[in-house]
Amino acid sequence: MEANIDDMSGELLGHAMQLLLEAGARDVFFTPIYMKKNRPATKLEVICDEVHKESLQEILLKDTSTIGIRMHKADRLVMQRESMIVKTRYGILRVKKATWHHIVKYAPEYEDCRKAALKHGVSLAEVYRIAQEACQTTKEVKE
Amino acid sequence: MEANIDDMSGELLGHAMQLLLEAGARDVFFTPIYMKKNRPATKLEVICDEVHKESLQEILLKDTSTIGIRMHKADRLVMQRESMIVKTRYGILRVKKATWHHIVKYAPEYEDCRKAALKHGVSLAEVYRIAQEACQTTKEVKE
Amino acid sequence: MEANIDDMSGELLGHAMQLLLEAGARDVFFTPIYMKKNRPATKLEVICDEVHKESLQEILLKDTSTIGIRMHKADRLVMQRESMIVKTRYGILRVKKATWHHIVKYAPEYEDCRKAALKHGVSLAEVYRIAQEACQTTKEVKE
Amino acid sequence: MEANIDDMSGELLGHAMQLLLEAGARDVFFTPIYMKKNRPATKLEVICDEVHKESLQEILLKDTSTIGIRMHKADRLVMQRESMIVKTRYGILRVKKATWHHIVKYAPEYEDCRKAALKHGVSLAEVYRIAQEACQTTKEVKE
Amino acid sequence: MEANIDDMSGELLGHAMQLLLEAGARDVFFTPIYMKKNRPATKLEVICDEVHKESLQEILLKDTSTIGIRMHKADRLVMQRESMIVKTRYGILRVKKATWHHIVKYAPEYEDCRKAALKHGVSLAEVYRIAQEACQTTKEVKE
Amino acid sequence: MEANIDDMSGELLGHAMQLLLEAGARDVFFTPIYMKKNRPATKLEVICDEVHKESLQEILLKDTSTIGIRMHKADRLVMQRESMIVKTRYGILRVKKATWHHIVKYAPEYEDCRKAALKHGVSLAEVYRIAQEACQTTKEVKE
Repeated sequence: MEANIDDMSGELLGHAMQLLLEAGARDVFFTPIYMKKNRPATKLEVICDEVHKESLQEILLKDTSTIGIRMHKADRLVMQRESMIVKTRYGILRVKKATWHHIVKYAPEYEDCRKAALKHGVSLAEVYRIAQEACQTTKEVKE
Repeated sequence: MEANIDDMSGELLGHAMQLLLEAGARDVFFTPIYMKKNRPATKLEVICDEVHKESLQEILLKDTSTIGIRMHKADRLVMQRESMIVKTRYGILRVKKATWHHIVKYAPEYEDCRKAALKHGVSLAEVYRIAQEACQTTKEVKE
Repeated sequence: MEANIDDMSGELLGHAMQLLLEAGARDVFFTPIYMKKNRPATKLEVICDEVHKESLQEILLKDTSTIGIRMHKADRLVMQRESMIVKTRYGILRVKKATWHHIVKYAPEYEDCRKAALKHGVSLAEVYRIAQEACQTTKEVKE
Repeated sequence: MEANIDDMSGELLGHAMQLLLEAGARDVFFTPIYMKKNRPATKLEVICDEVHKESLQEILLKDTSTIGIRMHKADRLVMQRESMIVKTRYGILRVKKATWHHIVKYAPEYEDCRKAALKHGVSLAEVYRIAQEACQTTKEVKE
Repeated sequence: MEANIDDMSGELLGHAMQLLLEAGARDVFFTPIYMKKNRPATKLEVICDEVHKESLQEILLKDTSTIGIRMHKADRLVMQRESMIVKTRYGILRVKKATWHHIVKYAPEYEDCRKAALKHGVSLAEVYRIAQEACQTTKEVKE
Repeated sequence: MEANIDDMSGELLGHAMQLLLEAGARDVFFTPIYMKKNRPATKLEVICDEVHKESLQEILLKDTSTIGIRMHKADRLVMQRESMIVKTRYGILRVKKATWHHIVKYAPEYEDCRKAALKHGVSLAEVYRIAQEACQTTKEVKE
């Protein structure tokens, strides 16, 4: 679902993003666009499952200034995901493991890493690095 | 309809927007993109009804540098719109009233408000505010 | 002069651009930025001479939502400009000739070329091309 | 202060923004830029007072991937601000009143309005509108 | 095919673009977007034929951080293209000629023009201009 | 140094970036902007030392369409850099080590890592990760 919005402030858009995420949107993002009459504007896109469509539409119409919504269906190819935990010098961190055929990737949980970085006074990049390192060696433990 | 354009200047793109709007496009907008070989470029998107498709395609091919156009169909959810007018201290202003189930929104006409702002030496935001206020209290008058 | 604006719609910004240009700004442009609390926003920049500074400041404070303006001085290197006219198959067109040491560039006047393109039913790019061609061969005629 | 960053993810940049704001930055914002070798990148800008400069520099060097910071001084023209409160049908809301010569603007507090919107089940735009209306009529009450 | 990426640096994205182009993508481009938690991010889009789909998917999953890909089918309207060569004062240059009904456009080959510009010490714009001029007058020579 | 460019295509801008980098610019980058008359445009910024200023100015005036350049001086805070090499399972890689007070960061050389990734059939992210790991344990070897 998407809408072009040129008559609403950024403050209100930030709030709308929050509402949409809380109502079950998989993803919400903004793209800067340029519209007629020299208007800098924002394209608001919402990625969601069929089941959340109606409640998200209502938020879009109620909490943004748009009067129309465009909808596209997209096929999705998604890697298989599972949660695991790793033990590191910065504590226990959750990691999302994604698998597709022979490809394996690890994405440490942002909030876990963020808290660990603040607690240990190191940079977030350092915690991610250590978490990635641990993923290679840890015997996997399902969450 | 959309096209990525990396071999055409902004001056020409501004002109193409005008031509497309005059030829019946519902909406035309630009998105800044980044293409290969370090090229800052522009995605030109046109939203239109089936009936205008062919004449807009011709403009795209003639008045922009693109040699290809991508086309998507989108479902649209649109609020019901009607025009009304409100009397304000800045004169009579047209307002678009949009309705969908229990949601009602008012969008004052940009050009009316702009002229009123210039005439009365106030900011456009002030005219919008007064117009919105009037929408709440005015007994609706169809245009 | 510049201001970051996250609490004003694109409609109002387009109007503010117009007002600033009419009040003597050399150039006004928007940059898409991202601010705290997930707010897509716009940086409004105005390039102007010292003499217009005060009246442009007043417009910024009155007609945009900003409550502060940042100001930078910049040195400028500007090519020497003169106006010339060229005769083409699309009529007489004004051209800005810019010179700096051995570098010479021609910029056909946008509005002249635009009108000629509409009148002759050709693309604006075609008129520019013909105007550029004429610049190379025309005996210069001061406007 | 500003830095161009092409070797750091958006996740880490969102975290850095938070840290910089908590450490006293007046404003932190991102601009999308394009760098060599086809790299989409981000310019991170920090606006701050002299007194916070050093601690913010340390965050930039520690918590982002940049190895250099560019610094500019800017003159600022700032409207005079004071806090006031208004009583509305959505409760008591704080408003920032900004004054410069004959120009007066009101900016309702985002967090107050946001909570009121959620509490009363109305859109944030509606709360802003009512707050603005109240500003025009309320006898000012200093906070 | 498209993916939103907020946990990968611009350096890596520039590399991924290269890999995708080498593997047969028709076009690869980046759009700056803004995601939750104040993250500046990048939408990576790949335009390709059915036949390359699978190998490009593998690159997206292996060489970017995304764990999901969205896919859309688009109809395409493409002008008929043929290669021609023109003789100019800057050497022989290849030109792509695009035709659709009565519309004819010429796009000089970037790499040919670039080399000619460097060799003759003139600007690339000048070489394009001369190539365009030659297209109008040259008896077409198929490559 | 910076210039706003609305009458030049992305193809030409990509070429100009290359020329500026080869002529000694420290950094060249593009920002998407929006100018009057609905023109999507590009701000071209060049960061350079005093010694390269004049030759870069000449390129800007000759190889872009701008007729004016704005120049700002900026103070810079730069971390102390030295080159080191690390031995990894993907071969010997150069790393830039940056130091400022107690802060130490490592930036593996992009070109080295890129070649190693292609040679070993792994992702660039994987090579970076291994290079970072090696930086923590390697006894430093000056290049």
